[in-house]
Amino acid sequence: MMLKVAKFGGSSVAGADQFRKVKAIIEADESRRIVVISAAGKRSGEDHKLTDLLYLIHAHLTYGVSCEDILKTVESRLTGIRDELEIPIDIESELAAFHRKLSKDSSADEIVSRGEYFTAKLMAAYLGYAFVDAADCVFFALDGTLDRETTDAAILEALERHGRIVIPGFYGQLPTGRLKVMSRGGSDITGAIAAAAVNADIYENWTDVSGILMADPRIVPNPAPIEKITFAELRELAFMGASVLHEESVQPVKEKGIPLNIRNTNRPQDPGTMIVESVSDVEQSEKFITGIAGRKNFTIVTVYKRGMRFSQTLRQALEIFDRYNAPVEQITLGLDSFALVSPSSSLGDAVYDVIADIKKNCRPDEVEMQENISMVSAVGRKMSSQPGVSGRLFGALGKEGISIRTIAQGADELAITVGVENEHFEQAVRVMYDSFAG
Amino acid sequence: MMLKVAKFGGSSVAGADQFRKVKAIIEADESRRIVVISAAGKRSGEDHKLTDLLYLIHAHLTYGVSCEDILKTVESRLTGIRDELEIPIDIESELAAFHRKLSKDSSADEIVSRGEYFTAKLMAAYLGYAFVDAADCVFFALDGTLDRETTDAAILEALERHGRIVIPGFYGQLPTGRLKVMSRGGSDITGAIAAAAVNADIYENWTDVSGILMADPRIVPNPAPIEKITFAELRELAFMGASVLHEESVQPVKEKGIPLNIRNTNRPQDPGTMIVESVSDVEQSEKFITGIAGRKNFTIVTVYKRGMRFSQTLRQALEIFDRYNAPVEQITLGLDSFALVSPSSSLGDAVYDVIADIKKNCRPDEVEMQENISMVSAVGRKMSSQPGVSGRLFGALGKEGISIRTIAQGADELAITVGVENEHFEQAVRVMYDSFAG
Repeated sequence: MMLKVAKFGGSSVAGADQFRKVKAIIEADESRRIVVISAAGKRSGEDHKLTDLLYLIHAHLTYGVSCEDILKTVESRLTGIRDELEIPIDIESELAAFHRKLSKDSSADEIVSRGEYFTAKLMAAYLGYAFVDAADCVFFALDGTLDRETTDAAILEALERHGRIVIPGFYGQLPTGRLKVMSRGGSDITGAIAAAAVNADIYENWTDVSGILMADPRIVPNPAPIEKITFAELRELAFMGASVLHEESVQPVKEKGIPLNIRNTNRPQDPGTMIVESVSDVEQSEKFITGIAGRKNFTIVTVYKRGMRFSQTLRQALEIFDRYNAPVEQITLGLDSFALVSPSSSLGDAVYDVIADIKKNCRPDEVEMQENISMVSAVGRKMSSQPGVSGRLFGALGKEGISIRTIAQGADELAITVGVENEHFEQAVRVMYDSFAG
Repeated sequence: MMLKVAKFGGSSVAGADQFRKVKAIIEADESRRIVVISAAGKRSGEDHKLTDLLYLIHAHLTYGVSCEDILKTVESRLTGIRDELEIPIDIESELAAFHRKLSKDSSADEIVSRGEYFTAKLMAAYLGYAFVDAADCVFFALDGTLDRETTDAAILEALERHGRIVIPGFYGQLPTGRLKVMSRGGSDITGAIAAAAVNADIYENWTDVSGILMADPRIVPNPAPIEKITFAELRELAFMGASVLHEESVQPVKEKGIPLNIRNTNRPQDPGTMIVESVSDVEQSEKFITGIAGRKNFTIVTVYKRGMRFSQTLRQALEIFDRYNAPVEQITLGLDSFALVSPSSSLGDAVYDVIADIKKNCRPDEVEMQENISMVSAVGRKMSSQPGVSGRLFGALGKEGISIRTIAQGADELAITVGVENEHFEQAVRVMYDSFAG
């Protein structure tokens, strides 16, 4: 029988209505036997995330200021859901115990992890699934890294014992018995750990969008969702500035080759985005590009030196960028010149030192600096074997009169990246999107 | 009054018919007062260049084999022109003197320089210009570099004394009194030296093509000539494989800002190509690209290393290429990878050592090698400020189904270079040419 791990994010469990949707989703597919739950998120713009309220409680305790009001807000959020859905659970006594234990010495992790804990408790009772505390199935080593072996065994054991389980995301237990939370978005990690532990067929990640979008919806109106994407492309998009699931957080499923499906709790009929390790050749040729992403504020430093020993001068320049911790993201070579592209924020004021050092060490004929450059990437699989891609891309940019400062196709052929003026950034993203998906 | 230096190449002085054309050209413009002459070239496919015959004579002498027949061929080439054009000059006694002086100890320079010497002697008499031996007006220092000051003074003095002069190209005199020839094509140098010495208004370089062509005529049928090109573009085209005048050889006119005009002796009505130091902004925007050139047989070495410290690993790899004297002509960066492009001939068998050293020093996850790659460049001024260029270029390549392995716009914005499979080289050149000039 198929086995799916379904993780629901904060917006998917923000209130009673969302709980109903989750239940419908779970009941629609028998194989969704492991459910990982985030802390209740915002129901509307003015609402608060449970996690934010809990961080605030910790801050109040630290500074010795009463936090009774915030605690009441937390409690009423939870009892409100319970009451509206008539979930048969005595959440009050648990909340009272939590309240009693709170002190100046309570750790932030102990407090904020309760967001996932209580939300998952409610959900488990609502679904009729067994609640399995993350403290009892997600274990860290003393150095803070996950103890995969013990964790895998515990999750597998819990699933075998109960058949259908709900696990709160975001935290686990240290060997000292203390709780430890993961980085924000840690419920994604918990879901991935669980999916890998039980060797699930699919890891479903339920959110409030119908998958990963081909472009930033703040720039492109209603961008199409990506049907299928490889982890490598996902990484490339994230690196180029797209706000997508961080590949590191889903490493456990990536390693096991378990496909990850981004779904929309509010539109369960949408197929969402499937993230896979690799895509068959047939599928590769069907699509031009996977997505578009970009970042603003790069600086281009161009070094001119007639008759230079190229490799030596370039190496010196790279060493100088390195010394000032400025990552070089693109290199273009000319006949007597090379240009290094680096994020302006990484260079900071050091750009003047960098240039001074280049002048001193490389003895160039000239050094030029160009700021306010944006890098925009079209990400896709095996770009080079799709002859039409670059033509469409540059044709569209040209037609709109957008000047291209730099052009590069990545060594891994996963992206073609162009440098444009910052003022053309949004336009470039839109034009590139329209040329492929429009 | 205007002053032009006109240099005529070997094909322009190959026979009596060509001499007549040269005379018509000289007589058509009073300002062509300095004429630089190459050695007579081939009149047809089976013919020989005077210079080649003279090199052969030197070889015969060196190995002690009689060269009477070859000498006769040389002599009859020269007397033939003299007789047909009825040039009033006793070339026989000069040839006899040359013949007598020949010995096992004659230097190659002494012998081969006679090609220019005799051809120029004939031309001077034919035009009614004064013959000025390069031995008396082109001077080298002991280290073989040109003694500009003495040379300039001598040429200026000769012009002032005679008014209209013919100088043989290709050679000059060392302080020891011995002759020294320049590298092949050295008549271009002599012409440039003369033009710079007298501060000419134009340096005309008369050849057998109506200027520099936009693409290799062996690949593109009847490519259009380039009207105007900068020295920097010329250099870029030459670097990318075009057989054009080498910029180094015309350094003296470049330095003085003297425009260089490539003309066709067989079609003097054609304007030819004007090579200039810089082109005004107005002219820049009128044209898309200047020319297309490319070279075959490059190797791409791609290094994959997850989470590498980029700059450090790249620097190590560059150092390794350097160690094996393999120039890196293009670098592309990926998220966890970089690719270095180098001519396969420079890498040679060392490519396996290069890869072995990269594996040892950079400890990469993977190293890939791709051979049989051609690099094709569209060369033009300020490519980045011409939004349509890359679109046309890549659009055309895409339409023809040519896969693009690498893409880069040079740091100096003088070229967009694409890497394609060798088998697509000629097609890529044609397609790129057609998209701009077709």
